[in-house]
Amino acid sequence: MARTDWKRPALTPLAEGMKRVRLTLSYDGSLFNGWQSQDNGVGVQDVLNEKLGEIYGLPVRVQGSGRTDAGVHALGQVAHYDVPIGSSRIGDERVALALNARLPHSIRILESASADASFHARFTTMAREYKYFVKAQDEALPFDEGHVGLYRRLPEIALLDGYARQLFGTHDFTSFASARDQSGSAVRDIYVSRWDEGRDMFSRRLYVYTVVGNAFLYHQVRSMVGTMMCLALKGGSVEDFKAILDSKDRSRALTTAGAAGLYLSRISYDETEYQWFEEMM
Amino acid sequence: MARTDWKRPALTPLAEGMKRVRLTLSYDGSLFNGWQSQDNGVGVQDVLNEKLGEIYGLPVRVQGSGRTDAGVHALGQVAHYDVPIGSSRIGDERVALALNARLPHSIRILESASADASFHARFTTMAREYKYFVKAQDEALPFDEGHVGLYRRLPEIALLDGYARQLFGTHDFTSFASARDQSGSAVRDIYVSRWDEGRDMFSRRLYVYTVVGNAFLYHQVRSMVGTMMCLALKGGSVEDFKAILDSKDRSRALTTAGAAGLYLSRISYDETEYQWFEEMM
Repeated sequence: MARTDWKRPALTPLAEGMKRVRLTLSYDGSLFNGWQSQDNGVGVQDVLNEKLGEIYGLPVRVQGSGRTDAGVHALGQVAHYDVPIGSSRIGDERVALALNARLPHSIRILESASADASFHARFTTMAREYKYFVKAQDEALPFDEGHVGLYRRLPEIALLDGYARQLFGTHDFTSFASARDQSGSAVRDIYVSRWDEGRDMFSRRLYVYTVVGNAFLYHQVRSMVGTMMCLALKGGSVEDFKAILDSKDRSRALTTAGAAGLYLSRISYDETEYQWFEEMM
Repeated sequence: MARTDWKRPALTPLAEGMKRVRLTLSYDGSLFNGWQSQDNGVGVQDVLNEKLGEIYGLPVRVQGSGRTDAGVHALGQVAHYDVPIGSSRIGDERVALALNARLPHSIRILESASADASFHARFTTMAREYKYFVKAQDEALPFDEGHVGLYRRLPEIALLDGYARQLFGTHDFTSFASARDQSGSAVRDIYVSRWDEGRDMFSRRLYVYTVVGNAFLYHQVRSMVGTMMCLALKGGSVEDFKAILDSKDRSRALTTAGAAGLYLSRISYDETEYQWFEEMM
């Protein structure tokens, strides 16, 4: 279990005569008003509920591992829904095909599978992985619009990676919390925090920040990325970055990176995957 | 000079008191109705003419190296325009910045530069490079929509590359001509023709076909790609592919690949760049 005081809510049991199906999906966040259902019906959740309703012929409500904001993408969002046993002849593994045939191309179901009552997309999440992609503004192509964070230039990656290592471990992340975060304690665990060089399919240079944690504060990843990029562009040292983290003062964060570069890339439900962290800390 | 009988038209001289400016640009073809001006004003050319008109305060008409169809993208399209000397205080090299500030993000000017009267974006073109990106359908992400050609699966790349080598050289490409092509002779030179493995920015596998030629027939690249992919998926041999090329019969081409995967990637105006081809053939 995570070392932090972020509490996992109690599970709601699966109702009698119902079965649970788990979905893994990717979506282009630039075309939706976020994950969550919206009054205007353009949340990713709304579209999934509608198409699942068509397949099963009854109202279906998906539960995601967590929300993503407007403009934020997913490479591996996970969701589940409950439907009456026998409500469809489509096997749980074939739901992915049936959904993809109905969904816009901006949402792709990567996998569908049977789940049991002990699984809950949100409440049994053990870790969340995000990736943030950045490019230099003058190396940007039209295809980057809405999909990559653009900065004046790309700073030394060793400096960025030096900052990122400071975020590893158990910390009070108040410095990177949004004023809108209402989760109480800002203490969270970060299991992976690193910058890598990459290339897009046109072989253009980019950087990608990968972070895995037990849970994140509202806007925490974007605030960490924005602060790392801006501090690096100003030539700030690793000690300068550590001072921002240690201050527990949200006025010290330099900026919040835009939604466009952020991808919810993986959800882990495996209790053992980050057990080494517990033992190490 | 190219060995084929494709004739280069005579240059129209630069009018007295005028100067010529050259642009290199990229655009997302999924958002435009092709390069060429359209009655509905959504050709890339229309947008450029409009924004250049704002900058210079007089009507400007850009001339591209050639058209791209609706849905086809550009990584390195080249165009030029003529304006009266002294019509703007913006230096020719700074036009890129001024245009990018006014253009939608779906069109990016990569470079602007002064050109002399001996340069003509279309009529002095020595070679055109296209790239075509393909992925397996079940490995596609939402971000691939409109930007990658999707196929049932990716065949052996060595087989595709074996086909591609047959296209190298001087050939009558009637087999890959569209019925709509009106250019007379179908003999063209191909200087580069090869398949490579690649990755997108999410490290997902893709293939890229790169082809450089002196000129192409209407839909020729898409017909060659579609035929190579379909034949490879059926397990056809290199000899089978060569028989299609040699037949000079357009009913033998298997299919025309979609516009989404095609990128006009580079225009060469260098007479010496492919001189080795002349000497070799």
